[in-house]
Amino acid sequence: MRTMNPSDRPDPSSVGETLAAQALDYVRAISPYVTGKPVDAVAREYGLTDILKLASNENPLGASPRASEALRQRAWDLNIYPDGGGYALKQALAAQFELDPHGIVLGNGSNDLLEMVARAFLAPGRNAVFSAYAFAVYALATQAAGATAKVVPAFPPDHPTMPYGADLEAMARAIDADTRVVFLANPNNPTGTWVDREDLVTFLAAVPPTVLVVLDEAYSEYVERDDFPDGLALSRQFGNLVVTRTFSKIYGLAALRVGFGVAQPAVAAMLDRVRQPFNVNHLALIAAEAALGDTDFIAHSRQVNAEGLRFMAAAFAERGLPTIPSLANFITVNVGLPAGRVFDALLREGVIIRPLGGKSDTGGISCHIRITIGTQAQNERVLAALDRVLLRLNESASEAS
Amino acid sequence: MRTMNPSDRPDPSSVGETLAAQALDYVRAISPYVTGKPVDAVAREYGLTDILKLASNENPLGASPRASEALRQRAWDLNIYPDGGGYALKQALAAQFELDPHGIVLGNGSNDLLEMVARAFLAPGRNAVFSAYAFAVYALATQAAGATAKVVPAFPPDHPTMPYGADLEAMARAIDADTRVVFLANPNNPTGTWVDREDLVTFLAAVPPTVLVVLDEAYSEYVERDDFPDGLALSRQFGNLVVTRTFSKIYGLAALRVGFGVAQPAVAAMLDRVRQPFNVNHLALIAAEAALGDTDFIAHSRQVNAEGLRFMAAAFAERGLPTIPSLANFITVNVGLPAGRVFDALLREGVIIRPLGGKSDTGGISCHIRITIGTQAQNERVLAALDRVLLRLNESASEAS
Repeated sequence: MRTMNPSDRPDPSSVGETLAAQALDYVRAISPYVTGKPVDAVAREYGLTDILKLASNENPLGASPRASEALRQRAWDLNIYPDGGGYALKQALAAQFELDPHGIVLGNGSNDLLEMVARAFLAPGRNAVFSAYAFAVYALATQAAGATAKVVPAFPPDHPTMPYGADLEAMARAIDADTRVVFLANPNNPTGTWVDREDLVTFLAAVPPTVLVVLDEAYSEYVERDDFPDGLALSRQFGNLVVTRTFSKIYGLAALRVGFGVAQPAVAAMLDRVRQPFNVNHLALIAAEAALGDTDFIAHSRQVNAEGLRFMAAAFAERGLPTIPSLANFITVNVGLPAGRVFDALLREGVIIRPLGGKSDTGGISCHIRITIGTQAQNERVLAALDRVLLRLNESASEAS
Repeated sequence: MRTMNPSDRPDPSSVGETLAAQALDYVRAISPYVTGKPVDAVAREYGLTDILKLASNENPLGASPRASEALRQRAWDLNIYPDGGGYALKQALAAQFELDPHGIVLGNGSNDLLEMVARAFLAPGRNAVFSAYAFAVYALATQAAGATAKVVPAFPPDHPTMPYGADLEAMARAIDADTRVVFLANPNNPTGTWVDREDLVTFLAAVPPTVLVVLDEAYSEYVERDDFPDGLALSRQFGNLVVTRTFSKIYGLAALRVGFGVAQPAVAAMLDRVRQPFNVNHLALIAAEAALGDTDFIAHSRQVNAEGLRFMAAAFAERGLPTIPSLANFITVNVGLPAGRVFDALLREGVIIRPLGGKSDTGGISCHIRITIGTQAQNERVLAALDRVLLRLNESASEAS
């Protein structure tokens, strides 16, 4: 072999820089997803111990007790690969939701499903349609596939019923010949807004059957309204619908990473082609199967959340801070100051929330923060901390002016 | 919105078929990875209870006891997202292997790392070079990215020292202007063959620094030879090297899905851009960190494997069945009959092994089966079962002729 003289070889670090430039242009352009700040990281950086994290829409009641018990009973054989086909969990899901198991695809969180859709159906020259203020991963997955994002303006902040909500008519109009995927979260994260059954059905009927509609129902189990659509039921009617759900929210299993998608079997087969063979780990499979039947825990989680959501909405209304209508397990509030500053100040109080208006933002919500609904004590703590922080920041702002 | 009359709308299943046809051509062409048959599936299909699985190169001694203990102590807070940055595990890896933490990327198994490389660096018009009989995921990941696989013929079956081994000189020659990635497993799966330090260094010096070399060391901890290269050490010298390792093999954590890649920080940053934010689950992070320090378990696993490998090689030599030289935790043997038939017959004996020569095969090893090295009792059981099966199949073959 012709080899290079070692002394002529550039140093490893500059080789690395040159190589990184060979990554695909659209990959180089990605701004990585910013995750909620982990408690450990805040503890390290600020020297704090008593930290409250209401940043990632986790279930404040913990994990499904049935799931925890299943892990205690069955978490052996860690040396053995998971069942890559997820047979038992798919059977349980099929029974619970009256589904064809061949239409179910399991994911390493529902995030994994969103990526599979992008990898199977998007590429340069194709586009995906979604609303402004949609879940950040839609933009990331679209970008990582080299496709174009058609971000449709949401309803304006002064919309009478659904400020910042998805404008389904505008989304339907945005679909063009190169559109292959529409992403829609219901309820949406990070706003909490939603679309009702009638509007969704009208929208689905307007979308050409050759365009995939990904209906992301990560937060749907929290919803208590009668006019809220059930994506799984609609998926029997609309063959171009892919419904995604997760065990990370109401089931309380975010640590384990498991979600699922429901689609026509022919579509599911395409997602399976880009799925990693053992994408869902063994403990996640066991825990999810057990959590699925934990109806008491789910009902209790839904009730505690509904109460907390009402409490927080009322508390912000009292304070004159505008909130976005939410049916999810979080509330997004306009604090009237740059969200990043409020986030930093709350960190120093030992409270982690989620500032919007970062790089992934499409503008217009840079003074909003998203707060996960906690237990009553947690809700009171974040409110008290926010009161202190806003008082301090507003005082220093008026002194500076 | 202009909507379609419900009666004009095609039925969901045919919509699904039409939609599946909209998946990217190169995705539609994928033959999904065939995983080792799970024990539960064999139990269901054959009505068996006492099943031995030596199909997926799992550690027959179980999981690292330190990892299991760490899970017992620390597996709480399942409702909380994992640390997406993997801070603690990266720190532990950096300390253990003297690495820059910024050059470490964590994966949902090392499979995830291989996919990240493909997604960041491969696309239509680019190609990846790897050897025939290489790990099946190289072809899958290349195909899923729409890139071309340049599969380089391996050494011939009658090669004096390394039959079916990677021909590094031919691989270096196969690199062209469109090559962005070279995949090389050391030792290789499913053959067990390897390249020594001198040959690898010569090869690395011959690869242009603008081509990424992915050195997959999933099985490297099993190797006992002095002339075997340490990819992590070489990665300090060669800036275009990405070394991948896994906790699924010698550490015994296949159920949990965790692996890692080591690269120049600039390259690692590109892989991170296509990494899913919470790709590694919380229990995997905890267990891997604990397993890393479990030197007794690792040493014992290595020793038991080395003894088993010698035992199995000798047993096949006695039987006149040719084996491929292996340094890994499995041995690949030519059973002289179509591998699929031997696989089926062994299943009925309650023994699961891995037939080669499936769709993902590049030809020439269709009579080879891969057997994971087990405990001494397991090794004896698979040999006895294989003896019965081969006797029966060879008898019926000679009767038929």
